[in-house]
Amino acid sequence: MIKLFNNRKDFDYFRNSLTTQSIGLVPTMGNLHKGHISLLEKAIEENDVAIVTIYVNPKQFGPNEDFDKYPRTLDDDIAKISAVALLLDKKKEIVVYAPNTDEGIYPEGFSTNISMGPMTQKLEGAVRPTHFDGVTTVVYRLFTITKAHQAYFGQKDVQQCLIIKKMVHDLEIPIKINIMPIIRNSEGLALSSRNQYLSESERVEALVLPHTLQKIEKLIRTKQDYKTFVYEAKANDKKWDYLEILDSKNLEMPTDKTQEVVIVAAYRMSSARLLDNILVTIASTGK
Amino acid sequence: MIKLFNNRKDFDYFRNSLTTQSIGLVPTMGNLHKGHISLLEKAIEENDVAIVTIYVNPKQFGPNEDFDKYPRTLDDDIAKISAVALLLDKKKEIVVYAPNTDEGIYPEGFSTNISMGPMTQKLEGAVRPTHFDGVTTVVYRLFTITKAHQAYFGQKDVQQCLIIKKMVHDLEIPIKINIMPIIRNSEGLALSSRNQYLSESERVEALVLPHTLQKIEKLIRTKQDYKTFVYEAKANDKKWDYLEILDSKNLEMPTDKTQEVVIVAAYRMSSARLLDNILVTIASTGK
Repeated sequence: MIKLFNNRKDFDYFRNSLTTQSIGLVPTMGNLHKGHISLLEKAIEENDVAIVTIYVNPKQFGPNEDFDKYPRTLDDDIAKISAVALLLDKKKEIVVYAPNTDEGIYPEGFSTNISMGPMTQKLEGAVRPTHFDGVTTVVYRLFTITKAHQAYFGQKDVQQCLIIKKMVHDLEIPIKINIMPIIRNSEGLALSSRNQYLSESERVEALVLPHTLQKIEKLIRTKQDYKTFVYEAKANDKKWDYLEILDSKNLEMPTDKTQEVVIVAAYRMSSARLLDNILVTIASTGK
Repeated sequence: MIKLFNNRKDFDYFRNSLTTQSIGLVPTMGNLHKGHISLLEKAIEENDVAIVTIYVNPKQFGPNEDFDKYPRTLDDDIAKISAVALLLDKKKEIVVYAPNTDEGIYPEGFSTNISMGPMTQKLEGAVRPTHFDGVTTVVYRLFTITKAHQAYFGQKDVQQCLIIKKMVHDLEIPIKINIMPIIRNSEGLALSSRNQYLSESERVEALVLPHTLQKIEKLIRTKQDYKTFVYEAKANDKKWDYLEILDSKNLEMPTDKTQEVVIVAAYRMSSARLLDNILVTIASTGK
């Protein structure tokens, strides 16, 4: 069984009843897929109580983005979470906080913005200039509201992960951030709620995204020239918003000290923008 | 006796030794005057331990402002705080945290900005567009580092006070904010570290600031027309950066529901910009 709360007062009353239990947080915008479920499974494995928040955060959508059409599927989400809960150890508990108003997240008159600076303006931030401020602000609120000890995020949104880790470092928020691997469908496409915007033919075409990243990964691993390949891939297909090989620690250009790179890309199709990335450990000899 | 810490590690060690004591925070940039001392006296009256922080925060100065020449007078400040400490109840304690590097406040690589939105762009914010972001960011850090239960600020910086209260509300920071009255010299000039930038003749000329506010206060209290007076005062003297009568709750234009107004002004002299304000309760009949 799971517990479901849709307003702050009831949730707070419950949360304040937890005194000694360890709390793991899985922040989501709902429309759960196997990627989210993998986060939930890890959260419940590592904590006494897992809290899944479901909230489509308006602050992280730009004015011309898909806030209105973003899929809201609370009943399905609850069913999926309940399926996980069926297998639980009796001492464990899954709690869903799905506020039905914005006041469930932001106190009345809220006008605060938490921004992490330059790191929010590149890659996704270059295309979505206010996106990450919306993300850090809502995640900060979720940390405050849930008072979680750990939180779980997906590697698919690698820039988001680094920005959230930076916020936790800078503001010394007492929470551990766990980044879980990308979950893919059988064909290799990284799972995303936005995949459902794709037509059937677009779903096939979208595979160019993971395939290109895999090809670059192979070139890097075998120490072949990947730069020409990336140059040509971008020159020949204008759907790449970006396709870059960066230091996975800070999303800067790799240096001699880089131990791991991330091949990170956004691919813009007519009905959705898709994100993907692959981490590659660099041998200690350098580039 | 007082305790003085100049690095984070030593301060943290001390702070973590306080478990049950109530903590009052007085955040300052040093160069203490009787305004600061009044905050300290209140903090030590209402708490077991008063922490005075002394840190000239670069983030709240604009690129062409007086960060470099801002008076740094640590020895004098310690002497003034020690004089307060001499009169203390033995169970009470005054602690000074005066970090000697920026890392004493901001963790390495810090890039976070906490902003309170539109309220930071008017009045002082119109002249100093990044000032209040610097204030909220450092105050947030001071709240985190000191884990204080209450903090004390001076009414002279009324906009700062409202912005900090807003941050505490929005982010649900567990601290009580106390605003203490303006302390003035014998002639009526509000005390400020920047008063020492003034020449002798400017000090006399500066009295136009409190005198004008007092005149407006009298007009409001006696229900006479103050608007013509304000209009003419501003038209005849271009040194007013602003001179406004606003709702003291939100610094918006007063409405029928306004219970208290603030007459708030900034007066720009050649060697310093001076701030002052007066609160006036409005009779329940409206404006």
